[in-house]
Amino acid sequence: MIVLCRTDLTDAQRDRILAAVRGLGVSPQVREQEGRTVIESPAATDASRCEIERLAGVERVFAGEPGAHFVTWDYRPTPTKVDVGGVVFGGPDTVVVAGPCAVEGLDVLLEIARAVKAAGARVLRGGAYKPRTSPYAFRGLGKDGLEFLAAAREETGLPIVTEVMDTRDVPLVERHADMLQVGSRNMHNFALLAEVGRTRKPVLLKRGMSATIDELLTSAEYVLAGGNEKVVLCERGIRTFEHSSRNTLDLTAVPALRERTHLPVCVDPSHASGRRGFVAPLARAAAACGADAVMIEVHVRPEEARCDAQQAVLPTELAAIVRDIDALDEVLRRTASARAEAVR
Amino acid sequence: MIVLCRTDLTDAQRDRILAAVRGLGVSPQVREQEGRTVIESPAATDASRCEIERLAGVERVFAGEPGAHFVTWDYRPTPTKVDVGGVVFGGPDTVVVAGPCAVEGLDVLLEIARAVKAAGARVLRGGAYKPRTSPYAFRGLGKDGLEFLAAAREETGLPIVTEVMDTRDVPLVERHADMLQVGSRNMHNFALLAEVGRTRKPVLLKRGMSATIDELLTSAEYVLAGGNEKVVLCERGIRTFEHSSRNTLDLTAVPALRERTHLPVCVDPSHASGRRGFVAPLARAAAACGADAVMIEVHVRPEEARCDAQQAVLPTELAAIVRDIDALDEVLRRTASARAEAVR
Amino acid sequence: MIVLCRTDLTDAQRDRILAAVRGLGVSPQVREQEGRTVIESPAATDASRCEIERLAGVERVFAGEPGAHFVTWDYRPTPTKVDVGGVVFGGPDTVVVAGPCAVEGLDVLLEIARAVKAAGARVLRGGAYKPRTSPYAFRGLGKDGLEFLAAAREETGLPIVTEVMDTRDVPLVERHADMLQVGSRNMHNFALLAEVGRTRKPVLLKRGMSATIDELLTSAEYVLAGGNEKVVLCERGIRTFEHSSRNTLDLTAVPALRERTHLPVCVDPSHASGRRGFVAPLARAAAACGADAVMIEVHVRPEEARCDAQQAVLPTELAAIVRDIDALDEVLRRTASARAEAVR
Amino acid sequence: MIVLCRTDLTDAQRDRILAAVRGLGVSPQVREQEGRTVIESPAATDASRCEIERLAGVERVFAGEPGAHFVTWDYRPTPTKVDVGGVVFGGPDTVVVAGPCAVEGLDVLLEIARAVKAAGARVLRGGAYKPRTSPYAFRGLGKDGLEFLAAAREETGLPIVTEVMDTRDVPLVERHADMLQVGSRNMHNFALLAEVGRTRKPVLLKRGMSATIDELLTSAEYVLAGGNEKVVLCERGIRTFEHSSRNTLDLTAVPALRERTHLPVCVDPSHASGRRGFVAPLARAAAACGADAVMIEVHVRPEEARCDAQQAVLPTELAAIVRDIDALDEVLRRTASARAEAVR
Repeated sequence: MIVLCRTDLTDAQRDRILAAVRGLGVSPQVREQEGRTVIESPAATDASRCEIERLAGVERVFAGEPGAHFVTWDYRPTPTKVDVGGVVFGGPDTVVVAGPCAVEGLDVLLEIARAVKAAGARVLRGGAYKPRTSPYAFRGLGKDGLEFLAAAREETGLPIVTEVMDTRDVPLVERHADMLQVGSRNMHNFALLAEVGRTRKPVLLKRGMSATIDELLTSAEYVLAGGNEKVVLCERGIRTFEHSSRNTLDLTAVPALRERTHLPVCVDPSHASGRRGFVAPLARAAAACGADAVMIEVHVRPEEARCDAQQAVLPTELAAIVRDIDALDEVLRRTASARAEAVR
Repeated sequence: MIVLCRTDLTDAQRDRILAAVRGLGVSPQVREQEGRTVIESPAATDASRCEIERLAGVERVFAGEPGAHFVTWDYRPTPTKVDVGGVVFGGPDTVVVAGPCAVEGLDVLLEIARAVKAAGARVLRGGAYKPRTSPYAFRGLGKDGLEFLAAAREETGLPIVTEVMDTRDVPLVERHADMLQVGSRNMHNFALLAEVGRTRKPVLLKRGMSATIDELLTSAEYVLAGGNEKVVLCERGIRTFEHSSRNTLDLTAVPALRERTHLPVCVDPSHASGRRGFVAPLARAAAACGADAVMIEVHVRPEEARCDAQQAVLPTELAAIVRDIDALDEVLRRTASARAEAVR
Repeated sequence: MIVLCRTDLTDAQRDRILAAVRGLGVSPQVREQEGRTVIESPAATDASRCEIERLAGVERVFAGEPGAHFVTWDYRPTPTKVDVGGVVFGGPDTVVVAGPCAVEGLDVLLEIARAVKAAGARVLRGGAYKPRTSPYAFRGLGKDGLEFLAAAREETGLPIVTEVMDTRDVPLVERHADMLQVGSRNMHNFALLAEVGRTRKPVLLKRGMSATIDELLTSAEYVLAGGNEKVVLCERGIRTFEHSSRNTLDLTAVPALRERTHLPVCVDPSHASGRRGFVAPLARAAAACGADAVMIEVHVRPEEARCDAQQAVLPTELAAIVRDIDALDEVLRRTASARAEAVR
Repeated sequence: MIVLCRTDLTDAQRDRILAAVRGLGVSPQVREQEGRTVIESPAATDASRCEIERLAGVERVFAGEPGAHFVTWDYRPTPTKVDVGGVVFGGPDTVVVAGPCAVEGLDVLLEIARAVKAAGARVLRGGAYKPRTSPYAFRGLGKDGLEFLAAAREETGLPIVTEVMDTRDVPLVERHADMLQVGSRNMHNFALLAEVGRTRKPVLLKRGMSATIDELLTSAEYVLAGGNEKVVLCERGIRTFEHSSRNTLDLTAVPALRERTHLPVCVDPSHASGRRGFVAPLARAAAACGADAVMIEVHVRPEEARCDAQQAVLPTELAAIVRDIDALDEVLRRTASARAEAVR
């Protein structure tokens, strides 16, 4: 039995809970985790667990293996809306996030930022810290990149989302970004998840390339357990045997997550497919199956991009994607079946 | 070097080709395969291959490993339209194929057939021969099932598609069905592929659950090599580590196949997800990314279905899916981006 | 509830079973499958199922989904030994099966057969019918190949195993081979499984490239349900994202199958890895974790092989593998841990 | 073109290299990475790359995408031996690393440490920081755990290996441990890899659960690029569709890594299988295919273990595994084929 206590637990409540657990004839162990008290003890009967769960100061009692709580519909029965600099993820519109893979310089970033804004994107993406398989590859401009992003926001008014990869960088990235991205390769970096959970910035949490839906949810739980409930989940392709695209976009994740969580869901067809020609049809598919947002890699001169050149679309292509998604949104808002799913 | 000859190869042409191969200083081996002569010989230079390819009676020359030819845009530069009893796969509308997993009896089949017709489906599906993991599971009504399907077509006017699993059953199924389905488990059953290639019935070829796009295309090539070019490819989910759905629907297969082949593409969200609640959003996603058809499992009383009960939708749910898909089709026909992709 | 009847069911027994099922207030459906009567009815209580199971003529009653029965330790509590022309699979020695991928001609086959015999192999493999991804690839010599194999057995005394791919070919292959191979691509070809189940020839059943252990066992169940209990299971690599080898050899399958079934287990490191240099270490690993047999592709001149040239080892390499396996067998027979596992 | 400079690059050398690159008509970008200067420029001809590679101060020039260098046989043509407190990984003996999943307390750790030493293990493992899917699960004793491990080393003389998960913890863990483990979930945590690369402690780098062999090598390259060449690679199972074991142990990784790198290879059958009964056969298989080490989870009372209870073996079982591995080592040292592979 794992007893998850509330963040506002008082000492008196704690003592009463511990006494109640001991009263079941088992001896509890107490830990502090993500700013909460967690009390662990050998298995208890269903009845006695319910009894503990009713005590003041108790958030939830898990029977066996602890799992997800704050991410579930049980905890919050209405869809969460995440506000990123005035743009709402989880509302009636599919939000289009767009920008370059990496921030490569101030001029080219500003050029791209203006272009994606003109094309209808609502949030600007761009990597200042890039996870790269090889230690010798371009790994981003770091602090400079963050400042260029801030300048692009200044000029275009678009809020910015950028990746953070190291617990030590969280304070710096938090100062510049409107939304912190935790990338696929760090979905299981629990120290980093806990650290972004301590901030109050919106978080874009990307699914690991071999992570299950369950694991994506428990990773999000790390952030929510720290008190930060502004999390947007992002499907970006999983690793399978198929290699006609870089990864296999798992769009079933959209309804599967919808069924399990109140958090908004984003889809990234650019990283999933790794193929410029596949981005538009997959972005439409994402919107059609109910995604709250799509994230699209854009470059004004893809052939010059310092990473992932083969997947960046042009601003004109982005504009067509935005038009399609707007049209799909309108159709689906009209149809009964989509409405029923949207309100569950 | 593999020389694929034309089906109308004359003896004189054959002799001339063989002489030309021998003239390269290598000795050819001759085989008859799928009604064609195939001439194999040790490697040749690019130049000499081109020379052979120009000879009368030669369809194509493969340099190394033989692969796909008739399925590619090189062979046919315009999209293939497959006519199934008057319903066209590969035309401007997304065709909805619907019906029960298995034919369970005449009355219930007729009831379902009327209901899916009323809901807007254009083709009736239903299994008379069912591939089942266990030898003790219900494996379909066989010949009776075929006759019930014919009766349902008689009454509703809907053409029927049904699976064939054994080379020995092809003549019988061919007599009753408007379209022969080769199921996922038989995508690599080359004897069966060759056999349906000898018929002139449209074929619905489902992707194997661990088959690559390449392999799906070479399996289709078996059918086309036999002279039957009426093939519709069907994405139905691949096997991955993720188990929130039965399989992982790989919608990237739609643009990936579009890029490689002139054959129409169908998507089966029912078998892919195995979850009734996921069928509608995934069917919309399939239409939005350009599928030519979707195949939906429907039952009037899902709880009584003898197989796959958990994935069958009700006729009312099917009607909503058909309405959504019609609306999406209309939107996407209007948008430039979709149109550009459609005509490549 | 599914009632699996015995093959020697009498009419009187059948009537009594049907009456008993009807006595539970449910109406049974009767099917003949793989030479057995199978009676299906709506769910029954545990108690009433036990009652039915005690009736004469009943082999087993499955509560819900029917699964595996004859392949389990419940059915046969001692390891099955499969005798192939005097060579025993499932006995104290690891059997080495070896030979070319495909039979390419009489002379080269005899040359290879003599060489693998001299190297210590006990069974000769060779494909007369080859499953090939492309319809234009060399698909084996067919009937001629079978006769060449018979000639090689005549000369060397080695029993032969060869693949059968089409239900229509089973009688012919059965006449020539000592053991029928059902290949990976046909593990889910249920018509073929039923057909080889009707023969009394030993069967080498290869795991499908995306088949689970459970599915391999239910495919074997098809063969045993037909009355043929001489089945050897073969792990040959599964399809994963990793491409440094052609497939990923799943050696955990060896203890996992041992735990579930009394049937012998073979491992094919050649097809699993697709790399000549990996065959020897993986063959040793297979023997070390308890495989009853290994199957190795051998060619006297690998560079001339008409298929899978890159994975064939030379006869001298085979001889080294046989020596290693013999030495490992001896060590493991001496150690307590291996002995304990071997007798379960 | 990426020019990787030597760590002892002088300013004069740097200037000469930059001048040479500019002499090719392209403009270089200079970065400092992992203590090395990396110079990037647009593509160059093969000839001009070779010219640059010959300049003083240049370690290597990559044509396109940068990859692995220090991990390859090109860089070091003899097998690397990694000394961990006097125990050599990469020598003639298969090293057995053993211990509990997590350090749970001083007494139980000492009890286990004594038992694994008596059973023949050479290195003690134990987690002070545990990566756990749920934020509410037991995540290790942290600093206390490190001190208990140091006490266990004191008492038994066994060197200790323990996981580090956060860049901020590296200095602390480095002070206590003889070998730093980077776990599967952090194989792509590049900040952490760079940080352990700055230490001079041996590193046990576990393969990510969906990482390719290539990616494992480039992750190791991060560590070596930092100047720390004491890296042992560890195969611990990959994620596939098969669920009879927790992960699929990919033993082909052993010969595949051997072919590509001079670094020693360890295998962890405990985490791979997640099943106590599978550990012994898989440990033998690992040794038989040439692994330099195996890592086994052991507990004196598995039923009381706070994590992964179902995979821990008893000390008596460990003793049997050690005996088997010793016997296999002896056999394989005697056989010609193994010897040939060992020296490549």
